[in-house]
Amino acid sequence: MDAIDVIRAKRDGGVLSHEQIDWAVDAYTRGAIAEEQMSALAMAILLNGMTRPEVARWTEAMIRSGERMDWSSLDRPTTDKHSTGGVGDKITLPLAPLVAACGAAVPQLSGRGLGHTGGTLDKLESIPGWKASLSNAEMLDVLRSAGAVICAAGSGLAPADRKLYALRDVTGTVESIPLIASSIMSKKIAEGTGALVLDVKVGSGAFMKTAENARELAETMVAIGADHGLRTVALLTAMDRPLGNAVGNAVEVAESVEVLAGGGPSDVVELTLTLAREMLAAAGLSGKDPADALKDGSAMDVWRRMITAQGGDPDAALPSARETHVVTAPSSGVLTRLDAYGVGVAAWRLGAGRARKEDPVSFGAGVTCHAKPGDTVREGEPLLTLHADDEARFARALESLDGAYAIEEGGTPSLHPLIIDRIA
Amino acid sequence: MDAIDVIRAKRDGGVLSHEQIDWAVDAYTRGAIAEEQMSALAMAILLNGMTRPEVARWTEAMIRSGERMDWSSLDRPTTDKHSTGGVGDKITLPLAPLVAACGAAVPQLSGRGLGHTGGTLDKLESIPGWKASLSNAEMLDVLRSAGAVICAAGSGLAPADRKLYALRDVTGTVESIPLIASSIMSKKIAEGTGALVLDVKVGSGAFMKTAENARELAETMVAIGADHGLRTVALLTAMDRPLGNAVGNAVEVAESVEVLAGGGPSDVVELTLTLAREMLAAAGLSGKDPADALKDGSAMDVWRRMITAQGGDPDAALPSARETHVVTAPSSGVLTRLDAYGVGVAAWRLGAGRARKEDPVSFGAGVTCHAKPGDTVREGEPLLTLHADDEARFARALESLDGAYAIEEGGTPSLHPLIIDRIA
Repeated sequence: MDAIDVIRAKRDGGVLSHEQIDWAVDAYTRGAIAEEQMSALAMAILLNGMTRPEVARWTEAMIRSGERMDWSSLDRPTTDKHSTGGVGDKITLPLAPLVAACGAAVPQLSGRGLGHTGGTLDKLESIPGWKASLSNAEMLDVLRSAGAVICAAGSGLAPADRKLYALRDVTGTVESIPLIASSIMSKKIAEGTGALVLDVKVGSGAFMKTAENARELAETMVAIGADHGLRTVALLTAMDRPLGNAVGNAVEVAESVEVLAGGGPSDVVELTLTLAREMLAAAGLSGKDPADALKDGSAMDVWRRMITAQGGDPDAALPSARETHVVTAPSSGVLTRLDAYGVGVAAWRLGAGRARKEDPVSFGAGVTCHAKPGDTVREGEPLLTLHADDEARFARALESLDGAYAIEEGGTPSLHPLIIDRIA
Repeated sequence: MDAIDVIRAKRDGGVLSHEQIDWAVDAYTRGAIAEEQMSALAMAILLNGMTRPEVARWTEAMIRSGERMDWSSLDRPTTDKHSTGGVGDKITLPLAPLVAACGAAVPQLSGRGLGHTGGTLDKLESIPGWKASLSNAEMLDVLRSAGAVICAAGSGLAPADRKLYALRDVTGTVESIPLIASSIMSKKIAEGTGALVLDVKVGSGAFMKTAENARELAETMVAIGADHGLRTVALLTAMDRPLGNAVGNAVEVAESVEVLAGGGPSDVVELTLTLAREMLAAAGLSGKDPADALKDGSAMDVWRRMITAQGGDPDAALPSARETHVVTAPSSGVLTRLDAYGVGVAAWRLGAGRARKEDPVSFGAGVTCHAKPGDTVREGEPLLTLHADDEARFARALESLDGAYAIEEGGTPSLHPLIIDRIA
């Protein structure tokens, strides 16, 4: 087979055969298809699309490029969640121990943040001693002892996807629904989870800005799950404003612990419980109500075991930033808008996120929101607190907040409902 | 500026600004845009197209990537021809000296063959001693002494195009009319010719299989010429059957010399004269009729001076292949079809062409056609003679001729007219 023939077939609007897809993904992983050839193919896929059978096979080929994890030795069903990423999206932190407390095993492979969206691993690494990298055997140990594990994906998992994602990132070929869907699903299927709930974010702070695009992505991923025999459910959820009050790393861990302690912001609690119920239902578990597991402390117990098992000290003080800057309400009225993207970029510029993969993050940096859309605020009251290690960072962060919030007398925010839709 | 932004703009159907084009072509030439980024951009251009101003600017940027030749020291106007390539297309060989004999200077930069289409330089190199590589100073000397020069383009001419063409060749992004047109025109404009006639081939043996595609390419190139102040005319000409009777290297040189001596196949003579008249008219010369220059030997005189000036011996015997194989007519009737592509592939497989840029060619290999479509043939008479250095090559060459010709009693060939259209 020849790379140019495969590129031409997709370029000219054709459907790639199973053989062409298997060959292309394998040859690319081995280096027999050059980077410049795969980027041309990726652009042709982005512009001409892929059919459902093509996407299913492409995903399968990426799974087969590496190992497939196996949790069949566990005595309980596995279930997992994947979020397409947002601002203040710390849900994995309370969710994984909560679902484990209700009887499932949660083998959660997470990623790091890039740009204005945060990464679960960056957040957890703000806990002193906690380590993200585990061998498969260590992962199984933590799952056995704690019921949930959150760690980095090893390099053996879908190496084709790893290589392709790095290429798409620099060639303007990220924004392809078939490529995004197959990238996410190849890792989740290779991870070996028995059930999967997808949290597809919608709004300015999300990768998908419109519900229409988000729905297409959700439907494509649910179809891939079905085609691979993985019970998959997707929720479309709001990312037009930040989730919760804390945006950053340590500040989000602290908020997650509040939720596990039975408190925390209502939107974080609601989304955590909704996703937990979906994960448990997809895993065929209906015994314990997750709301009870928050109240009775059993979710917190799992959290403490999980953090401890990965070297972290759940009682250690979290890092805080050296400098703070308070943004006050310029007038009195209703906060009608608090733009997720603007707040996400501010947190990023404060040091919570990274511009390049190899950059470090500041654990203490971030934004605390003192009001959320719909709240009434009074002129001069604190609206946001910015946290950074270096006060020189405040100026650019404030720029990104310019126009990101609005206060109107007697106004009403126009927002997505927290849970927009469910696709199964 | 950022490569990903430029790729995204074209990917999303936008029009690239002059600044984006200038930057992208320059950054690619310098290596600041990676190969995989340019191939994604090339695929986006192929699928989403370019507007006339974009194509003009892209061409301009490629010209500016290198030197621009200058013939203003000559005492006569320059004019040149470019063919998009075909089977048996030796026209440059008699044409350049013919036009020079009529008072113009012809600075013809030519290329080598790849695949089933032959290359002018490969043909001329079958003349003992002749060399294709000249410095700019040597080129000027030959132009001064002979009036015409045919040589290889130096590496200083449109290096962006050279790099981009090699990339497109391996990434399925050759077949883009804006990219083909800007590639050809950037070299011709950088070559510094004062007028240009394009021979856009149409048919199975050509790059453009249909008149519709060929017309679009011709119109795009004529527009680029106009936008750069270069008088440009395009002819669409037939390439559904081979041009002339000889297809190969030395066999085409011999046929070209026949034309210069006042003989030769009628289609080669007609196309040579038509192109010569266009080149002279575009250069503002109307003194001498090129038909006279063939009759009175003045075109042959220029040929001999030109070959001699480049180290060749115009009187030396041309190489011939060691083995021949004759294909005879299987029945009597009218030859209604002799497919250019089939004959071109046969010549290629006999050794006249190359599969990869670095392969050598056999000077003696090729095909001689003893009949052309419309001729009456009798069963058992020679139809084609195949020439090769190794008789093992005949089998695969014969395969490519399978179905490439048809003989019908009382039939009439359905062919393009030799000159299909003129675009100016």
